Amino acid sequence: MNVKGQPTRTITATADAVDIIDQTALPHAFVTRQLRTVADVANAIATMQVRGAPLIGAAAAYGMWLAARKAATDAALEAARAALLATRPTAVNLRWALDALMARLTPLAPAARAAAARAAADAIAEEDVAINRAIGEHAHGVIRQIFERRGDGKQKVQILTHCNAGWLATVDWGTALAGVYAAHDAGLPVHVWVDETRPRNQGAALTAWELGAHGVPHTVIVDNAGGHLMQRGQVDVVLVGTDRTTAAGDVINKIGTYLKALAARDCGVPFYVAAPSPSIDWTVDGADAAMAIPIEERSPDEVTMIAGATTSGYAARVRLTPAGSAAHNPGFDVTPARLVTGIITERGIAPASGEGLAGLFPERAAATPAAATARGAP
Amino acid sequence: MNVKGQPTRTITATADAVDIIDQTALPHAFVTRQLRTVADVANAIATMQVRGAPLIGAAAAYGMWLAARKAATDAALEAARAALLATRPTAVNLRWALDALMARLTPLAPAARAAAARAAADAIAEEDVAINRAIGEHAHGVIRQIFERRGDGKQKVQILTHCNAGWLATVDWGTALAGVYAAHDAGLPVHVWVDETRPRNQGAALTAWELGAHGVPHTVIVDNAGGHLMQRGQVDVVLVGTDRTTAAGDVINKIGTYLKALAARDCGVPFYVAAPSPSIDWTVDGADAAMAIPIEERSPDEVTMIAGATTSGYAARVRLTPAGSAAHNPGFDVTPARLVTGIITERGIAPASGEGLAGLFPERAAATPAAATARGAP
Repeated sequence: MNVKGQPTRTITATADAVDIIDQTALPHAFVTRQLRTVADVANAIATMQVRGAPLIGAAAAYGMWLAARKAATDAALEAARAALLATRPTAVNLRWALDALMARLTPLAPAARAAAARAAADAIAEEDVAINRAIGEHAHGVIRQIFERRGDGKQKVQILTHCNAGWLATVDWGTALAGVYAAHDAGLPVHVWVDETRPRNQGAALTAWELGAHGVPHTVIVDNAGGHLMQRGQVDVVLVGTDRTTAAGDVINKIGTYLKALAARDCGVPFYVAAPSPSIDWTVDGADAAMAIPIEERSPDEVTMIAGATTSGYAARVRLTPAGSAAHNPGFDVTPARLVTGIITERGIAPASGEGLAGLFPERAAATPAAATARGAP
Repeated sequence: MNVKGQPTRTITATADAVDIIDQTALPHAFVTRQLRTVADVANAIATMQVRGAPLIGAAAAYGMWLAARKAATDAALEAARAALLATRPTAVNLRWALDALMARLTPLAPAARAAAARAAADAIAEEDVAINRAIGEHAHGVIRQIFERRGDGKQKVQILTHCNAGWLATVDWGTALAGVYAAHDAGLPVHVWVDETRPRNQGAALTAWELGAHGVPHTVIVDNAGGHLMQRGQVDVVLVGTDRTTAAGDVINKIGTYLKALAARDCGVPFYVAAPSPSIDWTVDGADAAMAIPIEERSPDEVTMIAGATTSGYAARVRLTPAGSAAHNPGFDVTPARLVTGIITERGIAPASGEGLAGLFPERAAATPAAATARGAP
């Protein structure tokens, strides 16, 4: 998407390095960084300089390339894979990208591995862009339908989103926001309610910044406000991303997503999840399986401290809580499939159910014992 | 409740002034201020140095006393009333206290008004303490029942609360937290999940501080986390306060309360609202009437900027959003009665319905045409 009118991606490989946007500096400064080693990449993922499930996958793939450039033995690749995998345990794309790279590289002679890793990483990045563009077209259809059903031709379609599932979370386009960009670029009037998304404020910092950079009308709200807006008819559709969606259609996404899904259901507002197929975890199925998934617990400091910019423009962190008070910081929650209107994939929009997802991805569902068993296959 | 082991109230009148805790300095500093004029009181309410529906009522009453000490003509009292009423339009206690003072003072000779105002304000403050102590006893019963039903005699009762409905919101004891203090003081093991309550962070700043000051175990969470904790069985009961509850049992409370009520219902967690009778608005009744109540919209700055303490202990405000992004800041939402397990009043616990509330307060319900009509009375 655009930054100052220039088409921009979150990650770009050069001849011997990977350039990223340092998302921890947003929204107050636009800073790019050059990553030269797999340790640089692991650090960038762990500190959330790059974040968002699809972007983490692409970054990890480029990390394997940087590792293979330095040392391409089996042991070196295995060490690189382990270092990258340890950075974000919940992200299914991370494991998917690393497995894809390992499967591609281990059969090759070490001398051929670096070039093959670069090609594979480039392919993963390009595939992400293609997937997101396709998701955007399907979501654009949902937004257009709402606009046309209303028929007044004037009022903006009001979209609420949580966290950042925009182009900053991917290589380009985004997942949940791909449809917003597609609709906006096609001339549909849209307005986005941006949940600030405590504790890391990816909404207030990243979603607001990228929508503003591309010129999409938007308003930041606190996470508490979305239910009220839905009650008062000020939200036409909720669009969120997902870190991991199970074969049964249960959605693991940023903490607080579940609350918005409950409000959407209570208020009759459609609730869509944009899920690129690499974020679908076909190994987890069944009605209650999602509830047993371990949820990443992040540092209490993310709750007790917050970063921002002072009036003089300097970055500063301030403490919000009393010195003696503990904090607890689960990173994700599970939105049960029953609360989800549809899952928007690159192949179309599926009902949030095992049957729905298997209908769009029969080859993946059939290849996974858990998913097949849950649907009564032998 | 206790601060450094000393029983402390939020507001205390001396011979010629009113001492308050400046709650905008919490949790990083404990600052008291002396208010000498009605303008001081109006400013303290408007800037939320004093906040919380019951405390606002008491502060407004003392404001009328300070006004009457300076000038006790009808015109002066009416001007004082108007200035105080304009500070927080949603708070029903404010109007209630001001109406009570005006009814008490206007029949008197001006020379008698200051002394009568002081007596009336003292009575309102003492009545608040008595009401909250009674609410605390009823809520203590709910907590004890949960503890005894579990029967293991060890595990803490897990209570989730939103915003600050503790003693800082009242003259003493609090509303939602009165039962927590009563249970804790009686030796029951309790632990409170404290919603930070964006945008003003009354939970992280005030509830955490006052629970810590009194020695009650607690943990701060972001507003997004409560649904997840309920899904995973880590919340036994939700206890919140209310700024205004309608005669039909619909609850206007701090923005985000509705989302917690939805999660509680979805997860089978009891959801109680502590409502002192002065916060019940008998003039608003009927299933949809609450949805038509205008909701106070506060400054967007509360969303885009946040205050905290730097590592060196200084208070600082930082910007969270991009400079070009707008924000929207509704202060309250409506939790429909159907999501409320019970309304805890000083007279006992009522079902959240017109019948339920009228059963506990027949004299109030009968005196109010709207409430009586809704129940089929002529």
